[in-house]
Amino acid sequence: MFKKIVIFGVGLIGGSVSLALKKLPHPPHITGVGRSDHSLQEALGLGLIDTAETNIANALTDADLVLIAAPVAQTPAILRTIQPHLSANTIITDAGSTKSDVMSYAKAELGSQFNQFVGGHPIAGAEKSGPSAAMADLYIGKNVILTPDAATDADAVKRVAALWQACGAVVSNMSPQAHDRVFAAVSHLPHLLAFALVEDLAKRDNAELLFKFAASGFRDFTRIAGSHPEMWRDIALANKQALLEELNTYQQAVSEMTVLLENNDDAGLFALFEHASRARNEWAKSKTNKT
Amino acid sequence: MFKKIVIFGVGLIGGSVSLALKKLPHPPHITGVGRSDHSLQEALGLGLIDTAETNIANALTDADLVLIAAPVAQTPAILRTIQPHLSANTIITDAGSTKSDVMSYAKAELGSQFNQFVGGHPIAGAEKSGPSAAMADLYIGKNVILTPDAATDADAVKRVAALWQACGAVVSNMSPQAHDRVFAAVSHLPHLLAFALVEDLAKRDNAELLFKFAASGFRDFTRIAGSHPEMWRDIALANKQALLEELNTYQQAVSEMTVLLENNDDAGLFALFEHASRARNEWAKSKTNKT
Repeated sequence: MFKKIVIFGVGLIGGSVSLALKKLPHPPHITGVGRSDHSLQEALGLGLIDTAETNIANALTDADLVLIAAPVAQTPAILRTIQPHLSANTIITDAGSTKSDVMSYAKAELGSQFNQFVGGHPIAGAEKSGPSAAMADLYIGKNVILTPDAATDADAVKRVAALWQACGAVVSNMSPQAHDRVFAAVSHLPHLLAFALVEDLAKRDNAELLFKFAASGFRDFTRIAGSHPEMWRDIALANKQALLEELNTYQQAVSEMTVLLENNDDAGLFALFEHASRARNEWAKSKTNKT
Repeated sequence: MFKKIVIFGVGLIGGSVSLALKKLPHPPHITGVGRSDHSLQEALGLGLIDTAETNIANALTDADLVLIAAPVAQTPAILRTIQPHLSANTIITDAGSTKSDVMSYAKAELGSQFNQFVGGHPIAGAEKSGPSAAMADLYIGKNVILTPDAATDADAVKRVAALWQACGAVVSNMSPQAHDRVFAAVSHLPHLLAFALVEDLAKRDNAELLFKFAASGFRDFTRIAGSHPEMWRDIALANKQALLEELNTYQQAVSEMTVLLENNDDAGLFALFEHASRARNEWAKSKTNKT
């Protein structure tokens, strides 16, 4: 395991890694680096980090792992900042929700040390963010995807996998491109659709009346529309191509459903709803106690 | 309060009314009528009804309230069946999710007794259905909307309101048309969008991989896609015009969001997500402990 870990961005994601590792018999020393002194002091106060550091050279001294858990748009700048201070033994990983862009950033910024970078994506989250949202059990039973390149050091991949397994996660490997296509479909698309629905209603003259009678179905459908706007702007732009394809495919699916309704096609609507409902309930059964 | 209530369709909605009323000091006698003998026997076994009846004349003898809580497509047939047996003192109400259609059915089938019919819609539900899903506290704090016509007997409206209040609900009145427009937006549209998303993914060649990595955001967004297909086919067709308008408006909203993404309009995407996220979180705060 690692002896000194430097976390950039001690919020829900980074802070939860820290809390999980602190339960190990020999926890690593954890240094937090962040944009906001307020967040760092909060993370220190909550015991998420052992040291708060603003000097990058000091932070990276003897670090054997750097975890970048800041909003993904900051990743290139962070990589650029740390590159001059990286030893040959420091592994770098991230927790960003998009991976093709991050792998390109790492290749561009880390140069000959690109082989020390392991792209990662923990499939865990909550609508809350910030240090106070961190939980030691956030990753238990959750999927973490690593996206190594042909150049990536195999030992580095194994050690990052071991880190996440120590947090209770189940680790899979995938290419960055395959990762981004999968998450455009199952995560990024639903987020954008939920934002669009809430905005569609919120900007109407009768929004107050509509929201008064919105109930549990609306609540669950729109929960992810309460997510962090900056993070989702960054994800949408970072995974633009795959997401545009998904938006296009989805709008076609909605148009086909709309035609069934226009034609009073009761058998067609029933078949669509019945198939979707069966697929959704089978999925939920397969995931019981897993998500 | 009522002395004898006849419930058509003793599932989640009708069964939960029954369980709530059974907590009153002087609960009414409750007779269940249903399509399926199996459901009726199950309802009897669970104590949801006092009597199971297949003979409509017997069921309606001395009934002072008939509650139609069957799938909404059955409402005209039920009204036709009960009409010959209605006394001048029997109030008829329903629990359907659409109201313009139900009010028209009632006008057509009940003739001179249309004034005894009070359209109603309890805003409560769950993805489970059937007698075993019934809960005594389902309606506590929930909205129930009544949609009286100019012809509707005012005392009947008051008595149906009192019934729902006895179940713990908050009762509002609205025109059938206004009701259907509101629920097309806040309920029927999200249901259709969730069905469409699950179906869009479920029919792909890599559905298994996609579902493996779908997590909590997908789970909540698609919970309502696990809903009863027959019920949602009926709702969609019954509220066709309002729903087609909503689908059209939503597709425009998604297209506008897509243009922001195509143009890399980071400020535009941020503004949309930020506004939606604020509206959604304020809504959730206003609803705490209410939904």
